[in-house]
Amino acid sequence: MNGITARRIVLAARPSGWPALDDFRLEPFTLPPIPAGGLLLRARYLSIDPYMRMRMDEHSAYAGSVGLGETMHGQAVAEVLRSEHPDYAEGDTVLAPTGWATHAVSDGTGLRKLDPVPEPVTASLGVLGMPGFTAYSGLMVIGAPKPGETVVVASASGPVGSVVGQLAKMAGCRAVGIAGGPEKCRYVLEDLGFDAAVDHRAPDFAERLAAACPGGVDVYFENVGGPVWQAVLPLFTKFARVPLCGLIAQYNESGRADGDLAETMRVVLTKNMTLRGFFNSEFVEEHFAEFLRVVSGGIADGRIRYREDVTEGLAQAPEAFLRMLRGQNLGKVLIKLDE
Amino acid sequence: MNGITARRIVLAARPSGWPALDDFRLEPFTLPPIPAGGLLLRARYLSIDPYMRMRMDEHSAYAGSVGLGETMHGQAVAEVLRSEHPDYAEGDTVLAPTGWATHAVSDGTGLRKLDPVPEPVTASLGVLGMPGFTAYSGLMVIGAPKPGETVVVASASGPVGSVVGQLAKMAGCRAVGIAGGPEKCRYVLEDLGFDAAVDHRAPDFAERLAAACPGGVDVYFENVGGPVWQAVLPLFTKFARVPLCGLIAQYNESGRADGDLAETMRVVLTKNMTLRGFFNSEFVEEHFAEFLRVVSGGIADGRIRYREDVTEGLAQAPEAFLRMLRGQNLGKVLIKLDE
Repeated sequence: MNGITARRIVLAARPSGWPALDDFRLEPFTLPPIPAGGLLLRARYLSIDPYMRMRMDEHSAYAGSVGLGETMHGQAVAEVLRSEHPDYAEGDTVLAPTGWATHAVSDGTGLRKLDPVPEPVTASLGVLGMPGFTAYSGLMVIGAPKPGETVVVASASGPVGSVVGQLAKMAGCRAVGIAGGPEKCRYVLEDLGFDAAVDHRAPDFAERLAAACPGGVDVYFENVGGPVWQAVLPLFTKFARVPLCGLIAQYNESGRADGDLAETMRVVLTKNMTLRGFFNSEFVEEHFAEFLRVVSGGIADGRIRYREDVTEGLAQAPEAFLRMLRGQNLGKVLIKLDE
Repeated sequence: MNGITARRIVLAARPSGWPALDDFRLEPFTLPPIPAGGLLLRARYLSIDPYMRMRMDEHSAYAGSVGLGETMHGQAVAEVLRSEHPDYAEGDTVLAPTGWATHAVSDGTGLRKLDPVPEPVTASLGVLGMPGFTAYSGLMVIGAPKPGETVVVASASGPVGSVVGQLAKMAGCRAVGIAGGPEKCRYVLEDLGFDAAVDHRAPDFAERLAAACPGGVDVYFENVGGPVWQAVLPLFTKFARVPLCGLIAQYNESGRADGDLAETMRVVLTKNMTLRGFFNSEFVEEHFAEFLRVVSGGIADGRIRYREDVTEGLAQAPEAFLRMLRGQNLGKVLIKLDE
């Protein structure tokens, strides 16, 4: 179509446990015709996110699975190359579910026009996009933090956790971040302004976490699961709230995970706790505009900072994804496609 | 004091796992002097409840432990024998935390005058008391059932579960009860009017439960834990709610319980579920009056039925308690003390 050489990355094999590079395949593909009233899009930045791991499994309860040979799912910042859609014009910048591909056609479903286009535009995939809104809706709607309370978040240097902690500070809370390694902990403490940062790789991690939360944990924003949950469990205060938006520590475990269900249930009961699984999408209608206002304001006055981890080239997407799953990124992982 | 021969049952030994009769000791005791402005009470009916098992453990996160040699905790319907308290007069009938004892003195803390005295008075320890209010507040406030939804409750023949199911019917829901053995299942289905009753002792229990919930489970009122939880877990609908008020299946397990925490967390996440531990006391101020109105009305018009399991004599309390833990009671367990 019009001399466009479209390329994409498809799921070549289903991983059992940790995915590997040969679970993916880069291939050229022929764009389907633009549907009547539709658009042709060129992806500029792809968002790489932990939830994508769950979609690689055959029976993904977490939205739909990616079929074998199908394009990996994902959001992108894209440019409208051609439009027959009344709401979009050539040259517009949009958020679009293009998947891991250089181009896509669309009937407009799932598109959102970026107007104004934020600076940098990539913020719309991170701090002002789905990860930021996941942080905002989980913390503010479910966590409902009160001044003086302690908020703990894991993956604190990542695009969700970093916003959770900085919003907690804005709400007058003590923000405690958990991160992997001294570099990330330094970033969480010094750049992001958390009150404490605890390295989950430390052999005495649980003791350090307890020491960082002398008043216990009122809100734990859960996005990892596994051993971190075990360390937080004894620290919960009465009426503690746990917004649960991800379990990255579990995504690559094929077998039965280690963890005592009875103990978790006992603590939820005796502490009158609330554990609430959520997807950010359920809160968009009621809270997205307020989120954009609050977080844009926080960025403008320096109370919300963020980092991006940008790699160039579609071919690098699988490697960037695997690095993220291993926790080797610092900041929001993006693939730049201006080639 | 005045020739009263007061007797009580104390915790003689801490059980490890299932309690036994020799963990308790019946003994006479000398009543302390009535505090200034206080009362002397004679217990008429003692309430025997599952939560008492947790208080027998040394480190009970669930309110306070009973000390070795101390009177077992518990509520009673009591008669005021003497009063210097301005709110109570001789002959009044009160609810009081007398513990497992024939008499008690009180400064008025935790007392509630029964005015009018319900008929039968024992309802104030069951369907119109703490168990009934646990059912009401958990189901209506946390579960928030909508007409046409499916509500599942375990221990469905017991004083909490029976009210949960009958309130669910009043709310226009499908009520599915889980109970142990054909007699209890018949009672749940025929006398209490649940839509289905499933015997958790059946070898194909999980399949039967699934068949009884063709539209999935929207609200699961959790009061047992253990294998029942595992059977309900695959049936939850999107946005399911789980009020959690007890874990009787776990109370007597000393070791690590069987159960996959990762699977529970995965379901809570992917189904956007709410799991909320609660004690009825947190809802008393806002909801107790409305509870009394609704449930009294349900009793009056026959939509709420209940049974009592009454044993005579303080000395029988330990055996009645053990029978209840083994699920051998049918209805609210009470000890009658009019000796």
